[in-house]
Amino acid sequence: MVRVGVLAGSGYIGGELLRLLLQHPEAEVAYATSRRYAGEYVFRVHPNLRGVTDLKFVPFDASKLAGSADVVFAALPHGESVKVVPQLADAGLRIVDLSADFRLGDSSQYPVWYGYDHPRPDLLGKFVLSIPELNREQVKGARLVASPGCTAITTILALAPLIRMKSLGVDTEHVVVDAKVGSSGSGGKPSLATHFSERFNVVRPYKPAGHRHAAEIEQVLSSVAGVRVRVSMSAHGVNMVRGILSTSHVFASGELKSIDIWKAYREAYSGSHFVRIVRDRQGPFRLPDPKLVIGSNFCDVGFEIEERTGRIVAFGATDNLIKGAAGNAIQSMNLMLGFDEKAGLAMAPLHPV
Amino acid sequence: MVRVGVLAGSGYIGGELLRLLLQHPEAEVAYATSRRYAGEYVFRVHPNLRGVTDLKFVPFDASKLAGSADVVFAALPHGESVKVVPQLADAGLRIVDLSADFRLGDSSQYPVWYGYDHPRPDLLGKFVLSIPELNREQVKGARLVASPGCTAITTILALAPLIRMKSLGVDTEHVVVDAKVGSSGSGGKPSLATHFSERFNVVRPYKPAGHRHAAEIEQVLSSVAGVRVRVSMSAHGVNMVRGILSTSHVFASGELKSIDIWKAYREAYSGSHFVRIVRDRQGPFRLPDPKLVIGSNFCDVGFEIEERTGRIVAFGATDNLIKGAAGNAIQSMNLMLGFDEKAGLAMAPLHPV
Amino acid sequence: MVRVGVLAGSGYIGGELLRLLLQHPEAEVAYATSRRYAGEYVFRVHPNLRGVTDLKFVPFDASKLAGSADVVFAALPHGESVKVVPQLADAGLRIVDLSADFRLGDSSQYPVWYGYDHPRPDLLGKFVLSIPELNREQVKGARLVASPGCTAITTILALAPLIRMKSLGVDTEHVVVDAKVGSSGSGGKPSLATHFSERFNVVRPYKPAGHRHAAEIEQVLSSVAGVRVRVSMSAHGVNMVRGILSTSHVFASGELKSIDIWKAYREAYSGSHFVRIVRDRQGPFRLPDPKLVIGSNFCDVGFEIEERTGRIVAFGATDNLIKGAAGNAIQSMNLMLGFDEKAGLAMAPLHPV
Amino acid sequence: MVRVGVLAGSGYIGGELLRLLLQHPEAEVAYATSRRYAGEYVFRVHPNLRGVTDLKFVPFDASKLAGSADVVFAALPHGESVKVVPQLADAGLRIVDLSADFRLGDSSQYPVWYGYDHPRPDLLGKFVLSIPELNREQVKGARLVASPGCTAITTILALAPLIRMKSLGVDTEHVVVDAKVGSSGSGGKPSLATHFSERFNVVRPYKPAGHRHAAEIEQVLSSVAGVRVRVSMSAHGVNMVRGILSTSHVFASGELKSIDIWKAYREAYSGSHFVRIVRDRQGPFRLPDPKLVIGSNFCDVGFEIEERTGRIVAFGATDNLIKGAAGNAIQSMNLMLGFDEKAGLAMAPLHPV
Repeated sequence: MVRVGVLAGSGYIGGELLRLLLQHPEAEVAYATSRRYAGEYVFRVHPNLRGVTDLKFVPFDASKLAGSADVVFAALPHGESVKVVPQLADAGLRIVDLSADFRLGDSSQYPVWYGYDHPRPDLLGKFVLSIPELNREQVKGARLVASPGCTAITTILALAPLIRMKSLGVDTEHVVVDAKVGSSGSGGKPSLATHFSERFNVVRPYKPAGHRHAAEIEQVLSSVAGVRVRVSMSAHGVNMVRGILSTSHVFASGELKSIDIWKAYREAYSGSHFVRIVRDRQGPFRLPDPKLVIGSNFCDVGFEIEERTGRIVAFGATDNLIKGAAGNAIQSMNLMLGFDEKAGLAMAPLHPV
Repeated sequence: MVRVGVLAGSGYIGGELLRLLLQHPEAEVAYATSRRYAGEYVFRVHPNLRGVTDLKFVPFDASKLAGSADVVFAALPHGESVKVVPQLADAGLRIVDLSADFRLGDSSQYPVWYGYDHPRPDLLGKFVLSIPELNREQVKGARLVASPGCTAITTILALAPLIRMKSLGVDTEHVVVDAKVGSSGSGGKPSLATHFSERFNVVRPYKPAGHRHAAEIEQVLSSVAGVRVRVSMSAHGVNMVRGILSTSHVFASGELKSIDIWKAYREAYSGSHFVRIVRDRQGPFRLPDPKLVIGSNFCDVGFEIEERTGRIVAFGATDNLIKGAAGNAIQSMNLMLGFDEKAGLAMAPLHPV
Repeated sequence: MVRVGVLAGSGYIGGELLRLLLQHPEAEVAYATSRRYAGEYVFRVHPNLRGVTDLKFVPFDASKLAGSADVVFAALPHGESVKVVPQLADAGLRIVDLSADFRLGDSSQYPVWYGYDHPRPDLLGKFVLSIPELNREQVKGARLVASPGCTAITTILALAPLIRMKSLGVDTEHVVVDAKVGSSGSGGKPSLATHFSERFNVVRPYKPAGHRHAAEIEQVLSSVAGVRVRVSMSAHGVNMVRGILSTSHVFASGELKSIDIWKAYREAYSGSHFVRIVRDRQGPFRLPDPKLVIGSNFCDVGFEIEERTGRIVAFGATDNLIKGAAGNAIQSMNLMLGFDEKAGLAMAPLHPV
Repeated sequence: MVRVGVLAGSGYIGGELLRLLLQHPEAEVAYATSRRYAGEYVFRVHPNLRGVTDLKFVPFDASKLAGSADVVFAALPHGESVKVVPQLADAGLRIVDLSADFRLGDSSQYPVWYGYDHPRPDLLGKFVLSIPELNREQVKGARLVASPGCTAITTILALAPLIRMKSLGVDTEHVVVDAKVGSSGSGGKPSLATHFSERFNVVRPYKPAGHRHAAEIEQVLSSVAGVRVRVSMSAHGVNMVRGILSTSHVFASGELKSIDIWKAYREAYSGSHFVRIVRDRQGPFRLPDPKLVIGSNFCDVGFEIEERTGRIVAFGATDNLIKGAAGNAIQSMNLMLGFDEKAGLAMAPLHPV
């Protein structure tokens, strides 16, 4: 059994890490930290875990916690993780970081997207940005891993096979990403904007321009494509709690043949249990829909072609807290430690829900 | 008082026409037709109208109904309206048609988009496609009016000011429209896809390519722009009943100055009560959101600029059954008959709801 | 035109008062007060009213505001209204109070239910607790009116005809009221409990015992019945914003004949436009459902009989912000001032929504 | 590994049985039957199971299927199960029946509640109505088990400890049960009543009197109490897909001491992992709420006391498809076969969802 620690276990991603790790056949939760809830039972903060665990939150104390876990999951906010994680990394711990602080390979991008100078640019090269379906082998050998943002994972998995197809002639300068996101993606802190009466029934453009996940998406897709990819991204809050649908509109100058594109997806994900290709002729769910991945680590991908406008529409759907965050992080740990990639993550989605 | 008839009054748009016309200060409902519900009380089909009206549905019979109404609202399905409306038009009745059968000016487009040859191409030139905020004067003089589709109205009002701005250098060949639509937009007929347990919580791509409203949008925007505009449109069903948010992604080669774009919107809609420009610095509702127009004839429009990618994101929000359908139709009637444009349509949106 | 003032116009009930009064044919809004938002445009707080009004909130100042309105609607919190309203009443203003501070006739009940000693017990006898469908004539002659709580109005209208039927032999000691309430009933203040991710999808028992509206319900029903009525009430928050369904379970020792009970309802509400009796044999809406009153001042009532257990189940449904609050208050004003009872309140419910 | 068969695997309960059994560590799914979908992949009907199983539905054929499974789960409709299950029982198969056809011990009740004469009254005595938390030992020894209805399980677990407390002096003739149920409880068949636009936002009284689960509840509680218990039950559909909250209003003549009642619950369920007692002083979830059990086999129970009216309000919350149906059935199988009671059922609830 590997001993895992969870930093910032009181947020929604922290709660999901705990829920999944507590049920993981190869892991035991050594500790979960929370500044605010130190001393409190975990189930007081995550009431779903009542009857599941008697763990209490502890304060973060690097020296005390150092020897008690083999792997640390850091679910700290952007800008906080970078203050804490370097010393843990220096101490030789395996780390899966879920903040943005170690996602970008180029330190010059931190002032641009996140407004701070990265104090440890040397570490950036040592962190692997993990999307196992794209860089499984790299993750297997890693000790330090960053897990991408939820809309980033969802979008990248939907677009990578397309972007890679040279024959399509994708216009990589004008990739439009229009994301629809459940409320849990914006965390657990109450505000007027998240007050139920104000948030119910909305389709709210909450980040129409300058979405930070665009940086990660561009980094990965540019690497995949071998040319610069520019992502024009807008995100909307919709009337649900869990789930993301990422819709990408891609213009292409080549011939758009359904069978070729289908093959590209099949080849890209043939060995990847957690990516399902959805493209049906009938039934209510012909293309990816977040409703069908809730509670699972699946990312559903699919596409449609519009010949008239030379456009491919690519869809990705995830449970933002699982494949979009905690699940992808645990999947990464499984690879790092040589476990079955699916360990602790094989639960099928709930339906209907 | 003008006497109005409603054809196909049993659908959601028919019901909304009846709800609004029954409260209209200048109109009285002479009849409402329904093949299926002829003889039945209107409130059995539209249970919200219990206690509001004792009207019963009648079967459609052109000869009997001819003299009993001055204006006819036709809410028939596409392909059905074209079989019925021409004789009413020939008989000299004023008509507001809510189907697609008289929206496209070019008869050659009907086989392409709707799969039938238009039997009366001569009528197409006589119908005014009414979006009063864009062609108020034309509507005032019209006897025959077609009201655009709900996503078309919403998208056109959001895009027209941008498309018109020569200085922006909009790439009119690659306008992406990503629509999020409530369930009422797909009508009242039950199916597995609309079964509550299957439809709740979805973000469902239901028309990712080939959306028919693209034809109307292109027709109007091309006319506004003076050049061909190509619209790449995808529509999604989201977890609500009423409302549309249309998000348009527009690439522009010119300088993107917020103040200039703002002015363009202001000038476009300064005399139009029903278009509100929403672009706030704070609060939960900084940009258009369908939640804030429910129950009203408002179309909220707004925009955001992303300089990095040379993109403008334009938003339009309507209550799809009101400004997207019945309200726009009644507003058109008001103009045709010289009433106050707002007559019967001045209700403020509900909030919260 | 009567000039009306709205105290505490920034809450949800205040917003609904403003929305309705701004559209009222006989009223003009003289002012709306808000301590927190004084100086701010009303539409910044109630964004649905953008384009509808340019009114700004003013601070409350009894002396300044004294002469500027003929009727004052007080939507202050319980315990606050009693500090402000007495001086306005003493000054001779017509008042419609929407707090609980003037609802109970017996001052000894205030310490019991609200935890304070009523400073002006003399006023209690002068306020009419207004449910026009039950005491229309009294309200017509009143200068001071209190409007009951939303669940109280809904429950009372559903139960009054039953309680009055001597032949039923209702067990007035064991009347169970089980209410299901939308989120707007608990106001606009954010908290963890109202955070969307925590509030979505709930059926949350929020006041299982000791619900304060029981006091009003018992007061009115006891008066209607001529014997003491005890109400055992529990309230639940459900997954919607607007609307209440109140389900009352009543045991009766007499014969339960549907036709007799139906007649009792018919007689009770034959002259009352805003109460609809719903008891259909078919269709999805056979009994009252809040969905069908949203946006209107209707209270739908209906019942079912269970002979096996000697039980009548009575249902009441309202839009909690309209007939449950602002609408009932305006209806009361209409009566007080001799207007048409329906003035400004005739809007039909939205459907579907 | 035990081989299990699922009869009528295409409904929502069938789908949930398959989802859980496919992940069960001690079971393998031998077959799933469906008349309508025979030959079709299971994941075409239950699209959440795409990538999880390649099983296809088979037609029901008692002779062919006889030897291929050790345990049969029958999720057939009421009235259908009784036509099929007896021969399987006679053949010596272990059976867990999820219909009502073997729940009632007294055959004379079938004409009363279900409208048919039971063809095999001899079998009724051989089926154990399984609620493991109440009759674990009986279930362990059983070969034939009936699993109660979803609202029945939820209500019974909430009420049993109270009903058993002699000191409370419960009025067993007037137990009111007011249930709030998600849409999945009424199955997967589309109709106007379940059409999303008509079903969204409702609080719909769908079975205000004569609810069939009352028969099961009375049977079990009467047995627990040792006196006849009469249940006055009404059920409402609410705006969610999964989950039940059952609110019971119980009048008692004895002293209502919180500590004593708490102890009664603790003692009743101390050895039962799947029942959690929820009664907190703070936080948004002080009492059971279906939101907190979604995805799990938990039944949360709790209570509140109202001394003024001599009332105890008891709450039960389940995921209707899991502890209310498939989960309880699998838990029963685990006991019948000597497996760990939690095998395949230990998943923690999702939160937020």
